Amino acid sequence: MATALGITHSSDTARETERELSKFSQTLQTITTMPSSANNPCLAAEEPLDLENNGQAEAEARMAQYWVLNPPKPPGPWRDLVNSIRKTCFSTVNKFQSLKNQPFSATISLLETIFPVFLWCRNYTVMKFKSDLLAGLTLASLCIPQSIGYATLAKLDPQYGLYTSVVPPLIYALMGTSRELAIGPVAVISLLLSSMIQKLEDPEANPVVYSRLALTVTFFAGIFQAAFGLLRLGFLVDFLSHAVIVGFMAGAAIVIGLQQFKGLLGLTHFTNKTDIISVSKVIWRSVHHPWNPFNFIICCSFLTFILITRFLGKRNKKLFWLPAIAPLISVVLSTLIVYLTRADKNGVKILKHIKGGLNQISIHDLYFDSPQASEVAKIGLIVAVVALTEAIAVGQSFATMKGYHLDGNKEMLSMGVMNIVGSLTSCYVATGSFSRTAVNFGAGCETAMSNIVMAITVMLSLELFTRLLYYTPVAILASIILSALPALIDLNEAYNIWKVDKLDFLACIGAFFGVLFASVEIGLLVAVIISFAKIILNAIQPGIEALGRFPGTDVFCDVHQYPMAIKAPGILTIRIKSSLLCFANANFVKERILNRVGEKEDEETKGDAGGRTKLVILDMSNLMNIDTSGIASLEELQKKLMLHGTELAMANPRWQVVHKLRLANFVNKNGGRIFLTVGEAMDGCL
Amino acid sequence: MATALGITHSSDTARETERELSKFSQTLQTITTMPSSANNPCLAAEEPLDLENNGQAEAEARMAQYWVLNPPKPPGPWRDLVNSIRKTCFSTVNKFQSLKNQPFSATISLLETIFPVFLWCRNYTVMKFKSDLLAGLTLASLCIPQSIGYATLAKLDPQYGLYTSVVPPLIYALMGTSRELAIGPVAVISLLLSSMIQKLEDPEANPVVYSRLALTVTFFAGIFQAAFGLLRLGFLVDFLSHAVIVGFMAGAAIVIGLQQFKGLLGLTHFTNKTDIISVSKVIWRSVHHPWNPFNFIICCSFLTFILITRFLGKRNKKLFWLPAIAPLISVVLSTLIVYLTRADKNGVKILKHIKGGLNQISIHDLYFDSPQASEVAKIGLIVAVVALTEAIAVGQSFATMKGYHLDGNKEMLSMGVMNIVGSLTSCYVATGSFSRTAVNFGAGCETAMSNIVMAITVMLSLELFTRLLYYTPVAILASIILSALPALIDLNEAYNIWKVDKLDFLACIGAFFGVLFASVEIGLLVAVIISFAKIILNAIQPGIEALGRFPGTDVFCDVHQYPMAIKAPGILTIRIKSSLLCFANANFVKERILNRVGEKEDEETKGDAGGRTKLVILDMSNLMNIDTSGIASLEELQKKLMLHGTELAMANPRWQVVHKLRLANFVNKNGGRIFLTVGEAMDGCL
Repeated sequence: MATALGITHSSDTARETERELSKFSQTLQTITTMPSSANNPCLAAEEPLDLENNGQAEAEARMAQYWVLNPPKPPGPWRDLVNSIRKTCFSTVNKFQSLKNQPFSATISLLETIFPVFLWCRNYTVMKFKSDLLAGLTLASLCIPQSIGYATLAKLDPQYGLYTSVVPPLIYALMGTSRELAIGPVAVISLLLSSMIQKLEDPEANPVVYSRLALTVTFFAGIFQAAFGLLRLGFLVDFLSHAVIVGFMAGAAIVIGLQQFKGLLGLTHFTNKTDIISVSKVIWRSVHHPWNPFNFIICCSFLTFILITRFLGKRNKKLFWLPAIAPLISVVLSTLIVYLTRADKNGVKILKHIKGGLNQISIHDLYFDSPQASEVAKIGLIVAVVALTEAIAVGQSFATMKGYHLDGNKEMLSMGVMNIVGSLTSCYVATGSFSRTAVNFGAGCETAMSNIVMAITVMLSLELFTRLLYYTPVAILASIILSALPALIDLNEAYNIWKVDKLDFLACIGAFFGVLFASVEIGLLVAVIISFAKIILNAIQPGIEALGRFPGTDVFCDVHQYPMAIKAPGILTIRIKSSLLCFANANFVKERILNRVGEKEDEETKGDAGGRTKLVILDMSNLMNIDTSGIASLEELQKKLMLHGTELAMANPRWQVVHKLRLANFVNKNGGRIFLTVGEAMDGCL
Repeated sequence: MATALGITHSSDTARETERELSKFSQTLQTITTMPSSANNPCLAAEEPLDLENNGQAEAEARMAQYWVLNPPKPPGPWRDLVNSIRKTCFSTVNKFQSLKNQPFSATISLLETIFPVFLWCRNYTVMKFKSDLLAGLTLASLCIPQSIGYATLAKLDPQYGLYTSVVPPLIYALMGTSRELAIGPVAVISLLLSSMIQKLEDPEANPVVYSRLALTVTFFAGIFQAAFGLLRLGFLVDFLSHAVIVGFMAGAAIVIGLQQFKGLLGLTHFTNKTDIISVSKVIWRSVHHPWNPFNFIICCSFLTFILITRFLGKRNKKLFWLPAIAPLISVVLSTLIVYLTRADKNGVKILKHIKGGLNQISIHDLYFDSPQASEVAKIGLIVAVVALTEAIAVGQSFATMKGYHLDGNKEMLSMGVMNIVGSLTSCYVATGSFSRTAVNFGAGCETAMSNIVMAITVMLSLELFTRLLYYTPVAILASIILSALPALIDLNEAYNIWKVDKLDFLACIGAFFGVLFASVEIGLLVAVIISFAKIILNAIQPGIEALGRFPGTDVFCDVHQYPMAIKAPGILTIRIKSSLLCFANANFVKERILNRVGEKEDEETKGDAGGRTKLVILDMSNLMNIDTSGIASLEELQKKLMLHGTELAMANPRWQVVHKLRLANFVNKNGGRIFLTVGEAMDGCL
């Protein structure tokens, strides 16, 4: 997602490095020649080293010592930020700096960057088109019924679903970088839209306002997506972690399934809430009223038909098209049946008139001056993030399968543009559908051309066949949606998450139950909060671990992880378990180290015969950063150790840490003994 | 603060270690004897090692290899938690397990644990008492006027201040572990109380209810503090970092100063708000009305007097008592002057009648059934935390000066008890005062006896002298409070924070301006939020750094920190800059590594002649933890590197990390090459 964010300050540090190295070569001479007690106070730590063999070894040791304490100034937070931003924003610009003098090729490559279609259409062959055509048609046959179904799920008129399968795919085909992604309406987004918008407006009461709101939300979603792409904010999508998505999808699937009971039982009144409790109440109530079974029969029979075809498709790869066109077949069949038996007279709900013709221009339908504008924008943001997360997750998995790279930021830009244009041509939020993308891949599509084929097919059907859908029973849509749900519930993955990381699983479960019992957006919120709480807990955990020398090496490692590691008697080598010694854990860590030093008996049980510890070595190699509280507690630690007659030495502090220690002149004030490695610290102090 | 939280699972891992070691000694034989392509799939990585010299070296190398991949199972989060809690709660209990059979000594040592007074009163000498007496009297002479002043700051009647200097110090003397801490009312807490309680009740309108609320808050604060102590939640105090306290104190000082204009100008009406804007408005308005100058003159003249004495005290250590008794002197003088000149007739505000006699029992004044109970409890919590933070900060700094240890949890317990008992004897929240503790220390106190002396002195003055304070001008209290403020503003420290850590300074400034322009509690809230945002930023920063071999050593370090570090051609050694590879940064890190591998030219500028990178070594030594998203992106990274014809190896993964990688069978599935050190990885892979 962050392709354009290269290594920060790469070029200027190159220059700096040269400067440093020249400086270094001078200092090295001075060091090797100068007496051991140099003006640098910390070279005092070198005293114990015997000065007889004033050879290469010692020179190097002292050089190390010197450079541990006098590294080049690390880049400050601001500079890091600025560099990062510059890298991010101007990476594309820089690319064209070189081509400035030949404007033609510059424009070409600019066009190619914005419209990847120019890249692949060059060497596009008839063979490729054949497979794309096949894939496109298969896709269309699955897409038409699904679109209608999802539109009803989004509480919009059926034609909006079809509209959404026309314009967005065409635009994505021009701008997108994925070859397999099948664009159009999807179940989760449709649910998300209806569940959030109907808090502002009742779709039954005044559908016109509702649909206008939906279009406005789509517009905002597009704006946000495009903005993410342009500002390279791809990483925002990462904040919905994989675990969260698994839980969220599962919850959403169940909620969607419950929504289908409306069509299934042919109910006229249904709740606007999406949580399982209120929905089940409604269903329970309606089941106990007399209800007509025909809808139910139609739905179940065709659902079984679709599932059987899918099973066959799985068994025999040659029949991949069968599950794909099964929905279309069932729509046609059910429509015929209803038409012939006139079952609508006996209470079978039918679609009735679907508005034919192509997408209308809907610029004037967008609300901006409404009082709910801010509310609508908020919904737009949520929808945008969720849509992107799903699309990029799907796109990337297939890209990795085929072994090419997906540019997250370009993807976002193209999705944004397609939704903006979509909202102006009466489409609601479109994104990459998981089920259809799989079909597209299975049908062996080569390029985004399959999307174009699909779009054109849908367009034709909008022109010609909509009035044929008059008698299509609503129940069939329910069965089509239901057949798409099992793919959303991934128990296996959930089990893996549980196995590997309990806290991740907690986030997953949080999302699941949040969606199930509260609402879709609350589910997401809960999950995100859990995820970040996890990060904080991990960052400030105040653990310490005793290190020992791995036998036969110069490596010091955790004595619990490597039980054969040998502790030096009288020396306590400690590594802090977190990457940040800050206000929240510094005191804790200090106390624990002091406890360790105190607990003689405990030491002995660990087979450390040395009794009293004379030296504590703090391995700071995994301490990324430290704050003023951290430094303060280090100072206090040193004071208290001194009272206890124990020395404190430090090994391998990182760039930021040593820099801050020097600024707070911890180094000079306390003569802090700082070395490159734990081994050197032992040699240096004893 | 966390003394009792020793190393988790120390004892049982000791046992485990033995088990492991025995297991290990067996496995070691099997390894050294078995062929290199063992059933352990990852030993495949060993192939390149030449099998001729099947000696010690290789045995060790393979042993390392084996143990990297097969460490003992790390303690799960639950077990860690349980251990930690057990350690925490039963540490004191365990202490008495040993003494179970001799009940007498058990009770003794229990008493000594709860009441440290028994420890120090044993070897208490007349000499010690002399110095304590002197210190106590000095303390009292400073404490009496300050108490009255702070009571007015807390919008309570003057006697409450005096009450608060009687009971709490006596209890603390019995239970507290600090020898210098001077207990009583303090400025910041008084301000905090008034600023928050007067949102519930107007102190002018019905002072009785207000003071009852104040007592209830005190009670709750005591409960919370005691609970913190008993549950060993000392670390909660750390969440107000040093930087935050600096900013908060400075802001509070200014706010308190502004509050003094009421007494300074002898205003009758004043705002209940504490933020600088509304207060300055009131002052501005009142300055433009005719106001009488006498109050102002009295205040300023005595303020200058106090400051001069303080200056003298600083100059000449022998005169330490002068600044201490200056407030008392000025109270006496000003009272005399007003009495003789009858200045109260000309608009000089005076204290009038102060209710004499000792503390009344105030059990029946506590509200529990009031509708505001929850609100009051909330205030209690905030006050409790702030009070503890100040007291422990002050206490610990002096303890470290004298070189003894302060038990944070005991401190909390004793503060809690003293405030609970205080609230039942009409005292409001007491804590350790910075200024008075310094005086106490300067006066050479030996033990907490000085607190007892002070309390008795105040008690006597309550009995005898309160009616002498009838003519004491209110302005003098303002001058006493004002004279105490400069100690709260520590510009020097603020500068140090700025110098060392910009983000810490941000938190500091946040607290400062929050207190100044919004309100005291909002200031704290802002600061805490900033602090935790800082932690998150630090934890998920997606930086990577290229490593090189430090010349003449086997140490690999950041090439920017150590410019002389040498990169091996064709090998890219990367270390991740955060301790957590999680959903929030994993993707980012992956992309950056891929960029690095991609950027050939960039490599060359860094003097890496090797051109194409054949091997990427991920130094995982500072990766504390990884989640499912992290593992997923590692897998993706490996896939993409393979496409690019580059190998991925890992060095020194931590316990949790390698455990999770195995659970997610990343190791087996991708034959991930994992080694103990970067050096071994290089040898192993090339």
